[in-house]
Amino acid sequence: MHSQRFTAESSSDGMVERDFTVGGVPGVLWSPASGTEPAPLVLMGHGGGHHKKHPAMAGRARLLVTGRGFHVAVIDAPGHGDRPRSAQDERDVAELRRAQAAGAPEGPIVVPYNARLAELAVPEWQATLDALQELPEIGADGPVGYFGIGLGTAIGVPLVAAEPRITAAAFGMNWPDALFETAKRITVPIEFAMQWDDERIPREAALALFDAFASTEKTLHANAGKHFDMPRFEADSAVRFLARHLGRPVTSPA
Amino acid sequence: MHSQRFTAESSSDGMVERDFTVGGVPGVLWSPASGTEPAPLVLMGHGGGHHKKHPAMAGRARLLVTGRGFHVAVIDAPGHGDRPRSAQDERDVAELRRAQAAGAPEGPIVVPYNARLAELAVPEWQATLDALQELPEIGADGPVGYFGIGLGTAIGVPLVAAEPRITAAAFGMNWPDALFETAKRITVPIEFAMQWDDERIPREAALALFDAFASTEKTLHANAGKHFDMPRFEADSAVRFLARHLGRPVTSPA
Repeated sequence: MHSQRFTAESSSDGMVERDFTVGGVPGVLWSPASGTEPAPLVLMGHGGGHHKKHPAMAGRARLLVTGRGFHVAVIDAPGHGDRPRSAQDERDVAELRRAQAAGAPEGPIVVPYNARLAELAVPEWQATLDALQELPEIGADGPVGYFGIGLGTAIGVPLVAAEPRITAAAFGMNWPDALFETAKRITVPIEFAMQWDDERIPREAALALFDAFASTEKTLHANAGKHFDMPRFEADSAVRFLARHLGRPVTSPA
Repeated sequence: MHSQRFTAESSSDGMVERDFTVGGVPGVLWSPASGTEPAPLVLMGHGGGHHKKHPAMAGRARLLVTGRGFHVAVIDAPGHGDRPRSAQDERDVAELRRAQAAGAPEGPIVVPYNARLAELAVPEWQATLDALQELPEIGADGPVGYFGIGLGTAIGVPLVAAEPRITAAAFGMNWPDALFETAKRITVPIEFAMQWDDERIPREAALALFDAFASTEKTLHANAGKHFDMPRFEADSAVRFLARHLGRPVTSPA
């Protein structure tokens, strides 16, 4: 990654935050303040309607960066964060808001909307990974993982299926419809989170998506509660899962 | 607990092991070698055909005792370990071995067999808990949890339903048939482990048992693999779950 791609840098509590753009796509790289040895990289996908620096992203990044010594990168999904919405984005979002207001099922709208964003986002992620691996503190041969739920899974499943550099992934909270066939091509270890009483994603749909992954090591975590009730300890769990597979020793209690 | 009930004591690597009997039922209590402050107690149920000091029990006890500063007690289930088998036990075990050798479903034999053992074991556990709570290092008001899979769940579900002193439980790997109605009376936090490709317990049966618990906080962990492939990290997870609910700070990395 050419250093001029970094557009801003700040630091707090042991975590360095660097903004960057690759091919016009804005992203953030969080890194440990100390240490120059190459360290594993986790690509994180944000949720629908969120952005690269949403508090959920910053919080999970802190667990990985200060707790495990990893690097974490997040890019804005198409039409999210600092990126403009297309006319199609505007139509999809408006249609989703109408369905939510009417209490209608969201799947028929979210599934094709997210699939369209994923088609754009996968090559963006791959170009971002190319650029990040030019950094000496990441390197071309270091372990790479992925962590994203919701929209982060809609984008992450085709990304992980297409990208052999990613060797472990934490997913969750999506419909199988557009992801089922792609999930069948994924063989790396995965951890998959769902909400047992999700009012948006039917239980059987979430179980079917988990079932589709071809990974010999895969773990489903289902918690009682509705869509937005996912317990915070699932982020801790995903971090432990990624640390186990990306091969860094534990540096703090969990 | 009257001290004469302890029949043997040994110690290794920070863990004290004391054999005891309560009402003729043999048990073992593992405790931290240091510390006299009252500490939480975890009752552990061993698996079918196993016994109180099976390596799986000793290994999980070590995680709880040296990792978390907890006490752990295990008693032999009826007809297991140092306890004599009844004529009915012999018949049930022989019938189970025949079914296994023939590749026939085990549920129709294991379910009533385990239910019969549970009916005997629940009052034994309650008497054991009464006795253990007389020890000053445990106390009558300290937190109590339960951890048992397989037969440990067949006994644990009716025990936790009957016993208000138990405030968190880690279960898994059993059929719903004899446990479904009892599970519906359990409201304390639970963590439930199953194997996604279990050749003995049908997937839908395991999901139905998890679904039955009335607990508002409950978590299902399903791992790819057959019945005996449950990954060792599920024991670490159950320990973290129990530590979170029984309220002891972390004393070692996990």
